[in-house]
Amino acid sequence: MCQMCAYPNLKIERSYSCFRRTQKRHEAKTKLLQTSNENKLRGEHLEIGRQKEKTLKKMGLGVPALPFTFVAHLLAVAAIVMVLLWNIHFRGGLAWEATNKNLIFNIHPVLMLIGLIIMGGEAIITYKALPLKKEIKKLIHLILHAIALVLGIVGICAAFKNHNESGIANMYSLHSWLGIGVISLYGIQWIFGFVMFFYPGGSETLRSQSIPWHVLFGLIVYVLALGTASLGFLEKLTFLESSAGVAKYGSEALLVNFTAIVTILFGTFVVLSSISSAPGEDDYSPI
Amino acid sequence: MCQMCAYPNLKIERSYSCFRRTQKRHEAKTKLLQTSNENKLRGEHLEIGRQKEKTLKKMGLGVPALPFTFVAHLLAVAAIVMVLLWNIHFRGGLAWEATNKNLIFNIHPVLMLIGLIIMGGEAIITYKALPLKKEIKKLIHLILHAIALVLGIVGICAAFKNHNESGIANMYSLHSWLGIGVISLYGIQWIFGFVMFFYPGGSETLRSQSIPWHVLFGLIVYVLALGTASLGFLEKLTFLESSAGVAKYGSEALLVNFTAIVTILFGTFVVLSSISSAPGEDDYSPI
Repeated sequence: MCQMCAYPNLKIERSYSCFRRTQKRHEAKTKLLQTSNENKLRGEHLEIGRQKEKTLKKMGLGVPALPFTFVAHLLAVAAIVMVLLWNIHFRGGLAWEATNKNLIFNIHPVLMLIGLIIMGGEAIITYKALPLKKEIKKLIHLILHAIALVLGIVGICAAFKNHNESGIANMYSLHSWLGIGVISLYGIQWIFGFVMFFYPGGSETLRSQSIPWHVLFGLIVYVLALGTASLGFLEKLTFLESSAGVAKYGSEALLVNFTAIVTILFGTFVVLSSISSAPGEDDYSPI
Repeated sequence: MCQMCAYPNLKIERSYSCFRRTQKRHEAKTKLLQTSNENKLRGEHLEIGRQKEKTLKKMGLGVPALPFTFVAHLLAVAAIVMVLLWNIHFRGGLAWEATNKNLIFNIHPVLMLIGLIIMGGEAIITYKALPLKKEIKKLIHLILHAIALVLGIVGICAAFKNHNESGIANMYSLHSWLGIGVISLYGIQWIFGFVMFFYPGGSETLRSQSIPWHVLFGLIVYVLALGTASLGFLEKLTFLESSAGVAKYGSEALLVNFTAIVTILFGTFVVLSSISSAPGEDDYSPI
């Protein structure tokens, strides 16, 4: 039975657009649309598709994602400017090798924010932000996530390098614990997604059953990444205020706190985009 | 047209069970089910309902919520034991009036965790954890959230009281900024929910249109509360490690970090419960 229109002996269709594409096939197969009364019902056939389509749209928030994605892009630009301003203007700049070991540390917040949070967020909303074919969006999605993951790993290495060269203890704080958890889950999620949805790819059934879990697990990892980033901002600023003489209500403290707020807002709009309706073809329903 | 079965001139029904209740009314109203072929279609009429019901169930995760709620309850008990152990055994106990001002502060993490996070989380999963009538679940939901809100406000007052009596600056950290934001949004959400869904209550249409937004906004506020709690654990522990001689890898530090991890896991299971299927009657579909 077709789930779209409930006529028996018809292939199960996943969406109204899909239904419309195979409508002629339906009509060739079914013998039920022949009496005059059933010709009348045939008109309703399409109407059922429209109703179903509305229901499917409502499986997310039922509102268009595009405005949310625009706000996300703007917040991303703001967050990048703010984190660079903080680390270059207030913290003295970035360096992989330096006698001032603080410059090595500065790479950490910059790469984690631009990489894991912003590239990762943009990867998540690819499906909602771009009116492209599904296959192209999938490719952009996985490449952006790969870049996010690599920048994240390099960013974590910068923190360890700074600690090791400065004699600071590693892996004692909640930020570091969650951070290692998040980067590991991010990597597992990427590998799972690659194998299941790109190459070699699971069966049609397996993929359609996996996609809600891929979306859900991905969003959980992303929200954990946002939480970890917030912990990082607070931890670094607390150190600066308690030992480096940074004023609690000074401009640097305000900048760091507002960067964290903008980051959280960016993440919120990424999540909102991901549960709203895509502009073009969208072959999965989020959650 | 009935959205359940797409027969014209029928009242719109919201779910299969609702459809079954009004099925006889449908049959009395429609003239369409009289020819023999249509009698055949009448059987499909019910089948459409079943298919629709499946689709509606899948609007969440499509898995039962009950196991998630059991895990959440267990994690809640663990978190309560851990936060009490920390503040009573390691931090010297709780007091509203004391010469040792730290005892006043200790009320803060205890009430925020037991109140806002755990009572709030249990309030959220009421609809998924209890096989009761919707009206009773709604009452429990709003009472638990009210308790969560009151305990949260008293907990915040304890932090301010400690700061004021110890000469510590207020409202400079990301934790405090987000905390004030979260408690305000929590209060707004509670008042909105009370007016819209309890007394005086919006129209049927307005309520059914508002519920996905109530769920979404509530979950966003709750996740922000979890993030704020994590920031609090990290901030307090960082102070203790940098100025009160608490060892970075000692038992207290491990306890605090693990309390934060258990809190985050509890919140994750609350969110998972809220997007899974309720055991009994469930008159709204999450998100």
